[in-house]
Amino acid sequence: LTGTGAPVPSASPAGADTVYFLSDYGLADEFVGVVHAVLRRLAPAVAVVDLVHQIPPYDVRAGAAALVRAVPHLGPGVVLAVVDPGVGGPRRGLVLETDGPDRRWFVGPDNGLLLAAAARAGGIRRAVALESPDGRPRTDGGAAVDEPATFDGRDVFAPAAAALCTGTGLDALGGPVDERELVRVPEPVVEIGSVGDGRRLVRTEVTWVDRFGNAQLGAPGATVPASMPVVAVAAGTQARSVRRVRTFADLDPDEVGLLSDGNGQLALVVREGSAADRLALGPGDLVELVW
Amino acid sequence: LTGTGAPVPSASPAGADTVYFLSDYGLADEFVGVVHAVLRRLAPAVAVVDLVHQIPPYDVRAGAAALVRAVPHLGPGVVLAVVDPGVGGPRRGLVLETDGPDRRWFVGPDNGLLLAAAARAGGIRRAVALESPDGRPRTDGGAAVDEPATFDGRDVFAPAAAALCTGTGLDALGGPVDERELVRVPEPVVEIGSVGDGRRLVRTEVTWVDRFGNAQLGAPGATVPASMPVVAVAAGTQARSVRRVRTFADLDPDEVGLLSDGNGQLALVVREGSAADRLALGPGDLVELVW
Amino acid sequence: LTGTGAPVPSASPAGADTVYFLSDYGLADEFVGVVHAVLRRLAPAVAVVDLVHQIPPYDVRAGAAALVRAVPHLGPGVVLAVVDPGVGGPRRGLVLETDGPDRRWFVGPDNGLLLAAAARAGGIRRAVALESPDGRPRTDGGAAVDEPATFDGRDVFAPAAAALCTGTGLDALGGPVDERELVRVPEPVVEIGSVGDGRRLVRTEVTWVDRFGNAQLGAPGATVPASMPVVAVAAGTQARSVRRVRTFADLDPDEVGLLSDGNGQLALVVREGSAADRLALGPGDLVELVW
Repeated sequence: LTGTGAPVPSASPAGADTVYFLSDYGLADEFVGVVHAVLRRLAPAVAVVDLVHQIPPYDVRAGAAALVRAVPHLGPGVVLAVVDPGVGGPRRGLVLETDGPDRRWFVGPDNGLLLAAAARAGGIRRAVALESPDGRPRTDGGAAVDEPATFDGRDVFAPAAAALCTGTGLDALGGPVDERELVRVPEPVVEIGSVGDGRRLVRTEVTWVDRFGNAQLGAPGATVPASMPVVAVAAGTQARSVRRVRTFADLDPDEVGLLSDGNGQLALVVREGSAADRLALGPGDLVELVW
Repeated sequence: LTGTGAPVPSASPAGADTVYFLSDYGLADEFVGVVHAVLRRLAPAVAVVDLVHQIPPYDVRAGAAALVRAVPHLGPGVVLAVVDPGVGGPRRGLVLETDGPDRRWFVGPDNGLLLAAAARAGGIRRAVALESPDGRPRTDGGAAVDEPATFDGRDVFAPAAAALCTGTGLDALGGPVDERELVRVPEPVVEIGSVGDGRRLVRTEVTWVDRFGNAQLGAPGATVPASMPVVAVAAGTQARSVRRVRTFADLDPDEVGLLSDGNGQLALVVREGSAADRLALGPGDLVELVW
Repeated sequence: LTGTGAPVPSASPAGADTVYFLSDYGLADEFVGVVHAVLRRLAPAVAVVDLVHQIPPYDVRAGAAALVRAVPHLGPGVVLAVVDPGVGGPRRGLVLETDGPDRRWFVGPDNGLLLAAAARAGGIRRAVALESPDGRPRTDGGAAVDEPATFDGRDVFAPAAAALCTGTGLDALGGPVDERELVRVPEPVVEIGSVGDGRRLVRTEVTWVDRFGNAQLGAPGATVPASMPVVAVAAGTQARSVRRVRTFADLDPDEVGLLSDGNGQLALVVREGSAADRLALGPGDLVELVW
């Protein structure tokens, strides 16, 4: 599977035909649907692919992690990402154009949500800070009181995504921003060392617990060689030895294992069960691996 | 953003190219997917935009409120809305054609779900009661026993929406109904008065608690002037003073505030927190504001 | 409504223009979105209809039941279904081509998920076991260690669905499989007998509890004649008489009833309430009906 497989018809030579949409809006309310409606109205020829909308509320790091995981599977287009605890405040809105063979733009708040994904997509070629339609930056605080300021996904970011799709140039959306000024979030903890007796030690962080209870770690799969049969795992007050396996089916029922998951990251897993429950692990918890 | 922005290609001069779909079907079952499949089969060129499907089961008022909030953001097309506790019984099925620059139809049960949204969309131009394919109204009780009578979203409303999209005229779907005969739901409580010492009093209802815990009120944002610094709020057994602000970012952590939200309604909010939890508020609860 | 209603434009004479997608991936993570992205990249002209993604994790029988319920409402196209506890292990991946007027393929794991739906769609005409792109069956165990082996929905099944849509022939995807060798899951319990005094007895299984608390049974609606006014129901330690009705509206508030539901199956229901809660029933529980 390569990003240059089947040719994708473009809405316009200068635009894009796909919006990939991620948020913490949830599915209990009409937030996601209203953003779709805005995109449908402003860029009717565009397909919208929902990546996920149940990022925990306000959790910018969790949103950034999900975006990084998704990026390798996306074709060209606009990535619209909104996890935005600072909405209405002085934080800027961004469009990041990335390098690489596929034309791709990331649209969302300047709070660290987009950066790791943009790096994964090839790195930032150009960055602009979104301006409001009357040319004022959205951060000037000079907006009329009670102008809507709580739903920028609908009012600012979706229109910017639609504009990119229909051929508006990056320069028309705002002024350039120095990449070094962009807000960043802490990267996942990954410390690699040794115990002293020749054994290797990795201290890393749980970055994600998925629906099935698999606990993804910040360290890549290759950190612990696939040829290593057994790894000691310390998580919270628990310590145990687990097998390094290739897939769930290599495990016995109820056995905890360590594998390289579908994103190429280490993950603690149980076959048809929840490793997170078994080990009492959640996002942000630290885990030590020794082998 | 205006409703007449980019031109939307129409599936047919007489039809529509978009269905906006709202329901209480939830996402745990295949109900929503099956309705999509019916629309795909009967009107394959049409795009379906899901507004929300997690309206609380049978909660017609909550569905009506979500529809009203969404309407200002929709382009032309068919709004298919199904929150239908009376399915299979004598309640009628409706198509409401609205006035206004955009051609728009609302399809769903005659239980009050559609009316406020149709009013918001420009008012009702024509209303018809859906008839079954053999010409009998769906309300005659004469259906053969065990004819499916529990999933009209799939069997009645989606086919009607598809027919409108593919150019079927309103008259072919049923007979005219007098707008004054349509079933209505109570509007949100909004009582405006004064305390006697010159201070204003608004007694209103919580209409919606969103995923983030923001408690939207029945009173519009302009009810409490944005220039009013502090407002007394009595909710249940609690009373407190809150700041009238423009957006979340104006609040301190854990502070409750009052703002005009993304729908132009008053809302009680906490920055990165749940006002509903803080004030023990849920939909239907009454709140008093004094300033 | 027939499957041959409006003509559906085809992506290619030999392909398909619609993918119907069911899984147990849930909506909390980006799994579903990433599969959509893969389909968008490999078959950009195809519409993807999500049937449901909240099948309980690993519950192949529940997934098979949902698929059977959906099939009568689907047009031609590819059904992509992934409930896959054996992912990465020796279980095969399948494409089933079905008989019948509509061209339809079912893609997913060989664990019983697809069979009842394929039977409902007209029966299996041809079956193939998916091979990996280099020609090795996905079951040979010879894959390089740490080749991704945990997300075949993304890596194997979605690409196969996309290939079918864009005109790849079935033979190019793998070798033929004898239908009699396919893995099966137990069908729902339905035992029909009599009590001895002339009354009929049906012992059957709860196959599904939907969002509203309706408890669908394994026995078809016609098992208990619609003309039968009252039926004795024994569920767990509870026994009661319930009315056989046509629809929810025939019931009094809080009354439990028995009807033929939207899938033509018997179901225990409460009007605007949960029969499953009232009777303490869940999927797999046995129920006896006597009349």
